Amino acid sequence: MGEAWSAVDEARQWRRLMEMGEIGAIAGGDGAKGVNRACLTPLDRKARRLLISWAEPLGLKPSADRLGNLFLRQEGSDPDAAPVLSGSHMDTQPNGGRFDGIYGVIAALEAVQALREAGAAPRRPIEIVAWTNEEGGRFAPGCMGSMAYAGYRPPDAWDAAEDPDGVRFGDALREHLAAEKDLPRRPLGVVEGRAPHAYVEAHIEQGPRLEAEGKDIGVVSGIQGSRWFVVELTGETAHAGTAPLSLRRDAVQDMVRAVAALNELMRDPSDVLRFTVGRIEVSPNTSNSVADRVRFTIDFRHPSAEVLTERGDAIERTVRGAVRDCGVSVTERFNAAPVEFSPVVTGAVERAAAAQGLSALRMPSGAFHDAQFMVPLCPTGMVFVPCRKGVSHNPAEYSDPAQLAKGTRVLAQVLAELAA
Amino acid sequence: MGEAWSAVDEARQWRRLMEMGEIGAIAGGDGAKGVNRACLTPLDRKARRLLISWAEPLGLKPSADRLGNLFLRQEGSDPDAAPVLSGSHMDTQPNGGRFDGIYGVIAALEAVQALREAGAAPRRPIEIVAWTNEEGGRFAPGCMGSMAYAGYRPPDAWDAAEDPDGVRFGDALREHLAAEKDLPRRPLGVVEGRAPHAYVEAHIEQGPRLEAEGKDIGVVSGIQGSRWFVVELTGETAHAGTAPLSLRRDAVQDMVRAVAALNELMRDPSDVLRFTVGRIEVSPNTSNSVADRVRFTIDFRHPSAEVLTERGDAIERTVRGAVRDCGVSVTERFNAAPVEFSPVVTGAVERAAAAQGLSALRMPSGAFHDAQFMVPLCPTGMVFVPCRKGVSHNPAEYSDPAQLAKGTRVLAQVLAELAA
Repeated sequence: MGEAWSAVDEARQWRRLMEMGEIGAIAGGDGAKGVNRACLTPLDRKARRLLISWAEPLGLKPSADRLGNLFLRQEGSDPDAAPVLSGSHMDTQPNGGRFDGIYGVIAALEAVQALREAGAAPRRPIEIVAWTNEEGGRFAPGCMGSMAYAGYRPPDAWDAAEDPDGVRFGDALREHLAAEKDLPRRPLGVVEGRAPHAYVEAHIEQGPRLEAEGKDIGVVSGIQGSRWFVVELTGETAHAGTAPLSLRRDAVQDMVRAVAALNELMRDPSDVLRFTVGRIEVSPNTSNSVADRVRFTIDFRHPSAEVLTERGDAIERTVRGAVRDCGVSVTERFNAAPVEFSPVVTGAVERAAAAQGLSALRMPSGAFHDAQFMVPLCPTGMVFVPCRKGVSHNPAEYSDPAQLAKGTRVLAQVLAELAA
Repeated sequence: MGEAWSAVDEARQWRRLMEMGEIGAIAGGDGAKGVNRACLTPLDRKARRLLISWAEPLGLKPSADRLGNLFLRQEGSDPDAAPVLSGSHMDTQPNGGRFDGIYGVIAALEAVQALREAGAAPRRPIEIVAWTNEEGGRFAPGCMGSMAYAGYRPPDAWDAAEDPDGVRFGDALREHLAAEKDLPRRPLGVVEGRAPHAYVEAHIEQGPRLEAEGKDIGVVSGIQGSRWFVVELTGETAHAGTAPLSLRRDAVQDMVRAVAALNELMRDPSDVLRFTVGRIEVSPNTSNSVADRVRFTIDFRHPSAEVLTERGDAIERTVRGAVRDCGVSVTERFNAAPVEFSPVVTGAVERAAAAQGLSALRMPSGAFHDAQFMVPLCPTGMVFVPCRKGVSHNPAEYSDPAQLAKGTRVLAQVLAELAA
């Protein structure tokens, strides 16, 4: 079984990625081809059906839990053994690429198929997973599926979360489960079932380091922590031509003050800290009315739990101190502590890369991933592959077929070792 | 005919305003009732039909021009005389009130009806007008109908302007004209026809002065100038967790820099200048992606043509100087010079107020109005009535029945004098 990974088929995996990328395809600049496939939409369901259509002929059994997390199970020689879990997510950002998330799902399928074709018969079951709503692009926050699986939040915690069209997550999920009611329902993770034996997720790096350093494989040491906030400023609308500036309660102007003050709070000469205001909604949002309400998001990340706590906890008072005329509400929507991955997995990834003659780099992940929430449940780790210029969440996102196949070969060997 | 204005019926006018306010009614805070009636929508057409249903039984003849401007004509004893024109607009802001615009249309109807009931038979025709798209809330800029009527812009100048749903103005207008094809088509203002004899527009003040000074009637001396701009900043999207801040081209951060610099440019200790950023659109507008595009509007007004020119012309270089990482485009969408109204009309308004024992205040208008574009065509003026706390463009907008009737009585006497 030592060489089972060599059955990984670079061309087959690439074909599947390209076929999947047609579902929700969008055009980017310079001829780039991206994907807009939001979670719990008909496009998402079409992509899941395509995945199942590849897996079922191999004998893998589909099932889904109450959060819509999709599993494809290859039975082990000991069906009672805790399974090895591997996968990622299939949803994308609104202006996303063809690799983020979906690569980890298709790579897990390719790895399992390669092991089967090589005649490997691991003791433990291997389950391929596609987590619901990792991106948080339609419903914030992201990672709902894995958080619920891990018991990190109750499964109904986000029922009232609304997408930009006012559709509630709970309603979208209900509609989704009804559309997939032919799939067997399985218990929800450790909340209703038991922990897996291990979790391994393959992913494009979404950063520039592997490419810049000419490495094939990122051995991911852990994930920086993330805190997401929503700030709502409430002023008063008024006529842009008549209301004197001194009497206004202009939510746009207070937003500008708040963001400027937050930039000071988040200043970091080492450039390790990540602070992003990526979403702004203005009401009534007409050019000749003073805004009475602005909502904006804060995405704050850092590898240090101390920095996350100190600066994150200072966000609300910083906004309150900066705002001049508006009412302020600051709500924390997501808080994921930094995690370190298990040496059981990082060791297996390093051994596999070495055995296959691939260059590897130990590195932390700047992006969060579903793997973050598996850490308390079981030995967990990730395999990164390079992506061009580090671009992600963009149609220009790209990783070449050979790089992707190398990552999948490492994944196959790691899964074989963990499932043995 | 001297007392014809006394036939103005306060209760009838109020009932019509309230009935009209049901078309597009929305709820405001504290039980306030507002209106969202965008131009060229089915609600707009329903409102226009209601107006026609009140006017036709009085013998007024409806007609519309190619911009959708609606006219209700009372014939004069000399049908060849140039008509006196009076009216305003029926569209509202998305979160608008029950008085802005529509009061001037219903007041003109009430004034004409009162003159008829008092047996007055003016020599000149009187035409009530409802201008298309004064607000600019759905399609920017505002005042398209009156600008086209006055030949200030070609009638097809805004065909490509899009509403927030991507509907083009030209298409919405075509659909609208088709839905009203039973109305006789008339020539478009001075472009296809001839100038009116005079134009008078009644309107709520939309500012606090009349109420604060306890005056019944505002004798409007002129309108400050307005310049509208759209700024587009183009950066590059990136992953909020991985992209170092030093390498980002973040359009939100550049928007904050630009607005802060514009605040400096627009600083005015006298508090006469009006500067508003009321609309912001962010792309892709997700919390965990760096924004690659921000578009925001600038609404800049001042009574001095010199200030408008100097500071308005400095906007583009101020934005370019402030922005750090993004491409910049600044487009001027609207430019209306300050105007002074004719003593023919302001004198008539002052005489009418005095004759009726009402207190009056000469004052400029902070808001722009369709009247602005009539100034080059004919003697033009406006009658203001107080509104509570100066609130407008908001469901809390309010003026009481007695105040509104006083304005209409003044308007009736002015129309009678001008049409004699």
